[in-house]
Amino acid sequence: MPSRLVIGVDIGGTKLAAGVVDRDLRVHQRVQRSIEAKDSATLLDTMQDAVQELVKGSPAEIGGVGFGIPSLIDRRTGTSVVAINLPLDQLRVEALMAERLGLTVAVDNDGNVAALAEHRAGAGAGVRDLLMLTIGTGIGGGLILDGEVYRGAIGSGAELGHMVLALDGPPCQGNCPNHGCLEAMASGMALTREAHQLAAQRPDSALARAHAAGRALEGALVTELAHDGDAAAREVLELIGTRLGVALSSYVNIFNPELIVLGGGVMGAGEMLLAPARAQIAARALPPSRDVVRVERAHFGTEAGMIGAAVLALDEIDRRAGGAG
Amino acid sequence: MPSRLVIGVDIGGTKLAAGVVDRDLRVHQRVQRSIEAKDSATLLDTMQDAVQELVKGSPAEIGGVGFGIPSLIDRRTGTSVVAINLPLDQLRVEALMAERLGLTVAVDNDGNVAALAEHRAGAGAGVRDLLMLTIGTGIGGGLILDGEVYRGAIGSGAELGHMVLALDGPPCQGNCPNHGCLEAMASGMALTREAHQLAAQRPDSALARAHAAGRALEGALVTELAHDGDAAAREVLELIGTRLGVALSSYVNIFNPELIVLGGGVMGAGEMLLAPARAQIAARALPPSRDVVRVERAHFGTEAGMIGAAVLALDEIDRRAGGAG
Repeated sequence: MPSRLVIGVDIGGTKLAAGVVDRDLRVHQRVQRSIEAKDSATLLDTMQDAVQELVKGSPAEIGGVGFGIPSLIDRRTGTSVVAINLPLDQLRVEALMAERLGLTVAVDNDGNVAALAEHRAGAGAGVRDLLMLTIGTGIGGGLILDGEVYRGAIGSGAELGHMVLALDGPPCQGNCPNHGCLEAMASGMALTREAHQLAAQRPDSALARAHAAGRALEGALVTELAHDGDAAAREVLELIGTRLGVALSSYVNIFNPELIVLGGGVMGAGEMLLAPARAQIAARALPPSRDVVRVERAHFGTEAGMIGAAVLALDEIDRRAGGAG
Repeated sequence: MPSRLVIGVDIGGTKLAAGVVDRDLRVHQRVQRSIEAKDSATLLDTMQDAVQELVKGSPAEIGGVGFGIPSLIDRRTGTSVVAINLPLDQLRVEALMAERLGLTVAVDNDGNVAALAEHRAGAGAGVRDLLMLTIGTGIGGGLILDGEVYRGAIGSGAELGHMVLALDGPPCQGNCPNHGCLEAMASGMALTREAHQLAAQRPDSALARAHAAGRALEGALVTELAHDGDAAAREVLELIGTRLGVALSSYVNIFNPELIVLGGGVMGAGEMLLAPARAQIAARALPPSRDVVRVERAHFGTEAGMIGAAVLALDEIDRRAGGAG
């Protein structure tokens, strides 16, 4: 009988989150590692180490491991290409990790697996056409079209964070050669950049004081200050949410999705991002698509990637066992 | 036995093109009508009149009529919604035309049918994932994903001309409430707008002289002047092609398509648009998607919409006959 437990591993720009997950997509044990993105070998060691810790502590046999990685994937060769923020370029992660772990391994883009989790058992259960954005350090994307993960001709599609929003906008991050991408405009890194700028302009704001006190102006802190009523912090979230909404209005026109799911750490800001985003969709997108789309936060929150990676592993185990998958 | 001949009707922003088409997608008779976009009744009359002229002149029985219309469609009710440049809003075109014509009628978005034609027997024959843009007065879009026309949750997706390229760009056209859409930046109307602007800045150019002589600065004329070596006209095409290429780089990242097909009258400019567009894809899109995509002109040229509308009718006839379709 196929194994009851698998491990899902979500690799983000700055940290790795892994968990032992059962067939009802309940998470049993969890581990986290911060990622020192020095070189590939160190990163692969970190991945191996986290999985082996979970295998050791697991109450039952682990049948396989799924990885969601922040990289485009060339499925013709199983090679990761252009990991935007990590030293994963040109690695055959699936083959390498299978050899290191001696387990069934499945690998996909982190946005794809997050969408898979939400579609299988989260905010998008039963939905035929949805798109998902995971807004963290960068912005990942995943597409479920006609009920299936859509990956494109060779598996490197659904890079929804790399749609240009501003022709002459700021350079994008890491290995992306583009300018003015959604990721350059509304990711966690963009939020921090805008927060710095506004802190400099508003020396009396709580935002500026936090910066002066040496605190990192990241999403969680800006959200906390906005909750406490700081106008500058609120303005940062309004700006990011507005840009996000412009992108979503394009995606509504392109896909006519039933649902847009938003996950990733930055979504901790909740309605302070969602309200301006929804306002842009209402103002910019075309009817009737505009009027039927729902925008929701990820059911699995920041664990969508980890749980989706586990789904990937479960599907792969079932596929190899000749099951339905 | 299902009919051998159908009529395909392509309705553009300023003219209607219709033809009698056989099962090998050869066009026999053709008619054109200019569209005076005053009101719905006049437009429906024009559509009816063009079809009836073709029916009368046809050598054999016409089995059905397909229409490609520049409108979003709500397939829940068969209603056209927000025809960007025409008085087609809130009409049940399929039901209305079936009643007027007494024939099997099928209706879809003009971009969708153009993509259908190119996929069935044109530039995209045998291709699983492609996107198509028809660049005329406006910009229509069509998607073939996993070998099928992708229409979205209720049929109003694939509005590929309404992706925002410039957050604070010029207002879009007609009924689109957005700013800085691809259509506002790189359609025939945008080309004319930019040509006027450049003509004003370069009084010595052939472009300015043509304008002073009262000629309309449309795609065909700008293309002709550019071919003749006018630097200002070339600059207009370079600008439009560059913007088009920025949009295509986003679509490469979003869809990882095997092929992008470009049709519509503006593509008469050929390599003068395609070369700067391809340069943007090379500079901006992510590998490996960037390296596998092909960008080609529509095999059926400006007749892709008409022929796709005919394919739609043929498929509908076969579907009703219980055939494979």
